[in-house]
Amino acid sequence: MDLKQYLRAKAGEVDKALSALLPERWVYPEIIHEAMRYSLFAGGKRLRPILCLASAEALGKDSNHLLPVACSLEMIHTYSLIHDDLPAMDDDDYRRGKLTNHKVFGEGIAILAGDALLTRAFELLAEVGCQAESSMKPVALQVICEVARAAGSLGMIGGQVVDLVSEGRPIECETLTYIHTHKTGALFTASVRAGALMAGASEQELEALTVYAENFGLAFQITDDLLDITGDETKLGKPVGSDERNKKATYPSLYGLEKSRELAREAVAKAVSALGSLPGSIWPLEQLARYLLERET
Amino acid sequence: MDLKQYLRAKAGEVDKALSALLPERWVYPEIIHEAMRYSLFAGGKRLRPILCLASAEALGKDSNHLLPVACSLEMIHTYSLIHDDLPAMDDDDYRRGKLTNHKVFGEGIAILAGDALLTRAFELLAEVGCQAESSMKPVALQVICEVARAAGSLGMIGGQVVDLVSEGRPIECETLTYIHTHKTGALFTASVRAGALMAGASEQELEALTVYAENFGLAFQITDDLLDITGDETKLGKPVGSDERNKKATYPSLYGLEKSRELAREAVAKAVSALGSLPGSIWPLEQLARYLLERET
Repeated sequence: MDLKQYLRAKAGEVDKALSALLPERWVYPEIIHEAMRYSLFAGGKRLRPILCLASAEALGKDSNHLLPVACSLEMIHTYSLIHDDLPAMDDDDYRRGKLTNHKVFGEGIAILAGDALLTRAFELLAEVGCQAESSMKPVALQVICEVARAAGSLGMIGGQVVDLVSEGRPIECETLTYIHTHKTGALFTASVRAGALMAGASEQELEALTVYAENFGLAFQITDDLLDITGDETKLGKPVGSDERNKKATYPSLYGLEKSRELAREAVAKAVSALGSLPGSIWPLEQLARYLLERET
Repeated sequence: MDLKQYLRAKAGEVDKALSALLPERWVYPEIIHEAMRYSLFAGGKRLRPILCLASAEALGKDSNHLLPVACSLEMIHTYSLIHDDLPAMDDDDYRRGKLTNHKVFGEGIAILAGDALLTRAFELLAEVGCQAESSMKPVALQVICEVARAAGSLGMIGGQVVDLVSEGRPIECETLTYIHTHKTGALFTASVRAGALMAGASEQELEALTVYAENFGLAFQITDDLLDITGDETKLGKPVGSDERNKKATYPSLYGLEKSRELAREAVAKAVSALGSLPGSIWPLEQLARYLLERET
């Protein structure tokens, strides 16, 4: 199997599980479930759930029973996108070529759909814990803790706050690093660690996968910034150049294109080399990191 | 001790715990922690945490170690108020006589402060589970499940959705009941049940306290509607008559003042009689329900 096939297979499993784990669109009050599903099935690449599943596989464990945990991470990611797109934040009308949630359902419902996805994510993680055998319950609780911390005011929300208050003014390297490690990095790391913890990782294995995740997140962000300059609008489903128009600090704006590409390559190399000692199937994580350097969306 | 002293003592404990359980206002990024604390310490009565603590006491258990669970319920309540007050929802400038969160910090930060309080609430519940002894871990997981369900799209958020889409149009009794049992009732019930579960309630005790909570929630909502007509603006800290101006369906608008008062009395009587068989100190729950009939705020 090559990476493309692997990603397609995993994304298919995640999509099926996501749909089964959310109230149907005809469940009252219908509009909130329609709104939750609208953004959840708007073409996401399912990177976070796949990182979670692939981490368990890198430890030689079956990942199928981790689908609910993986899905909770996608719900949290989707909630953050819905809220980020609101007029009071980034004010985006389109994402992945589709109208954003508030453009379709109105701001009030969009805010509530985000709230509901976040809440459902934690319910789901707790359900996994409730159904797990005794020995896994402490692990399930630790996963909830870590995911919440990664998503909270000292994690993802903190990153979004700094991004929001920095818009339109010059920022320093440290601020850019803070935004990225928190706004996107924290949830990538939590996704990998959640999979590893649920798969019974040893301390050393957890540490190795954490190094992988942190460098994966860094490479993801740099290549995301690069795509906003060199990407293809049709493939991206959104206009390029928005970072420059909004005077957002990015890796290319601080370091230039060439140096940014080099930093991305370095991060991928570090991510890949951290996988060396793991006992399971490491190629999906390895390929996934390398793919960042040639991503088009 | 009378109810007033009891409420003051418990609210004091809750306030102290809340402050200790949130990042300080000087923790980076400062503005989000200021915004979280602003609304959390804006004069709430701490009803939900007190219901949680008093439920454990009604079972003859010490409630002190339940403070973090109690605080998580207040955080969820506060997040829901911040989001409800937003321009895209109820568009309120004042709450309890103070400017609403978005009037002070802006809409973007207000949305994120709500998100962060919700996320911190689940982190806190998971921390309680992580620190609990083995036998309590399944209970902690069940509490997270129940609280999430009560707060989600089939609970509190569902109620807010129906409230939002019903504004300005005539609604039926069933819709009003749906809004109230979900928008406010679900979290009251979860608060009582969380305290009971953590105190090791038997099936029967849990059932009795659930009946108490459901009727408490109903009486709370009816008296809330009544206050919007007959209340004192200075004491309430907000203008009265807003429900009528916004054409909101309320108990008085559907049933008239007298019948509404009778319904509230009936609900309080049912709540109180459900407490009869409990082994602990039931007077705080009893008095708390009776107090709804004479509340001024």
